[in-house]
Amino acid sequence: MSDIELFQAIHTARSLRRLKPDPVPEGLITQVLDAAIRAPSGGNAQNWAFLVVRDPELRRSLGAVYRKASDIAAKVYAAKGRPAHMTERQYERMMSTGVHLWNHMGDAPVILVPCLRRLEVPDAPGIDLAAERAYAERIRGASIYPAVQNIILACRALGLGTTITTNHLRCEDDVRVLLSLPDDVDSFALMPIGWPIDRFGRVSRRPLAEVTHADRWGNAWPA
Amino acid sequence: MSDIELFQAIHTARSLRRLKPDPVPEGLITQVLDAAIRAPSGGNAQNWAFLVVRDPELRRSLGAVYRKASDIAAKVYAAKGRPAHMTERQYERMMSTGVHLWNHMGDAPVILVPCLRRLEVPDAPGIDLAAERAYAERIRGASIYPAVQNIILACRALGLGTTITTNHLRCEDDVRVLLSLPDDVDSFALMPIGWPIDRFGRVSRRPLAEVTHADRWGNAWPA
Repeated sequence: MSDIELFQAIHTARSLRRLKPDPVPEGLITQVLDAAIRAPSGGNAQNWAFLVVRDPELRRSLGAVYRKASDIAAKVYAAKGRPAHMTERQYERMMSTGVHLWNHMGDAPVILVPCLRRLEVPDAPGIDLAAERAYAERIRGASIYPAVQNIILACRALGLGTTITTNHLRCEDDVRVLLSLPDDVDSFALMPIGWPIDRFGRVSRRPLAEVTHADRWGNAWPA
Repeated sequence: MSDIELFQAIHTARSLRRLKPDPVPEGLITQVLDAAIRAPSGGNAQNWAFLVVRDPELRRSLGAVYRKASDIAAKVYAAKGRPAHMTERQYERMMSTGVHLWNHMGDAPVILVPCLRRLEVPDAPGIDLAAERAYAERIRGASIYPAVQNIILACRALGLGTTITTNHLRCEDDVRVLLSLPDDVDSFALMPIGWPIDRFGRVSRRPLAEVTHADRWGNAWPA
């Protein structure tokens, strides 16, 4: 099992959106999936599912839907402009590799689709069904995006490029039909996986001091 | 920097809910936070914030709110019963350590609270504001729960126990007041952190074959 140290993986797991078309050995995808399912999920329900899309025609169709969804994303990005915390060079790289992905999702040798089945809220004495349903809806992401991060880190360790995108949810019904998802199952991300054209490297982020608080909101941390 | 291999960390990052009251060195919390912010976020917006709650009185108050929220959680767990994929022993351990946490959240030396600021959807030509706001709401978790998983893994590497719980969102307004959260900032988890009473160990999960699909829903993977 190929492996690197945890902190090195975390600090160098850059989003790599430009991928070679070369196939990825099935054993590596299994290792990635086996890492995904070690993540926590609410009540340890493990109500997740992972679709491994390799069929060329299906990838092409998913790619076309993703391209359509990206027409909307492009307008939003254009209206928002560059976030203050990113340099022009960082922003340009993100946007140019992002646009590459909009046009080439279907060329990734593997598209991994993390999904969740909706859990029934039990109807029992003392349970406020409406409140509990709203709560259940709100926390769904807590049961799938930790697994997504394990996928990102496992890919990093194996030298595979990937990224998370949720853009396809703007055309969710198209995706649902293509993947034959049951009504109570929703997709939460598309993750193109393949051998990367670009290199891993340290990810730079807003400084910790800007995003941490001691005890209550607004107190500098560390105190 | 203490470190272990990525796959070892992922496969042994068991939820450890029983913690010693001993303080955690500030430098370790910094390492954990520095790992958290390496996670991806939508559009690399990094609109996250992390509250590090160490003040004893504030922890006690948070603990009391968590205890109150757990009265609701207890009813839901009781009504649901044991998930089919867990053995009785696994379920008993989850519930007994879970109940311990319901009663002792405030005793954890550190309670980390990952938050997100709500991002404005730009009002520009060609953007369907209602649809885009619904999309933005839906994908919020994708910008914070990957960071949560980095926190879990960093704690594992450093020998610190932690877990993710969202139960406090059942009493969200109380938490908002205690932490002085601005109106456009929401908390997404409580993560008690401390030296663990129990040991790390391999996490067991539903078999991959039950949760993976080849291409479309329902096809066995690997094919």
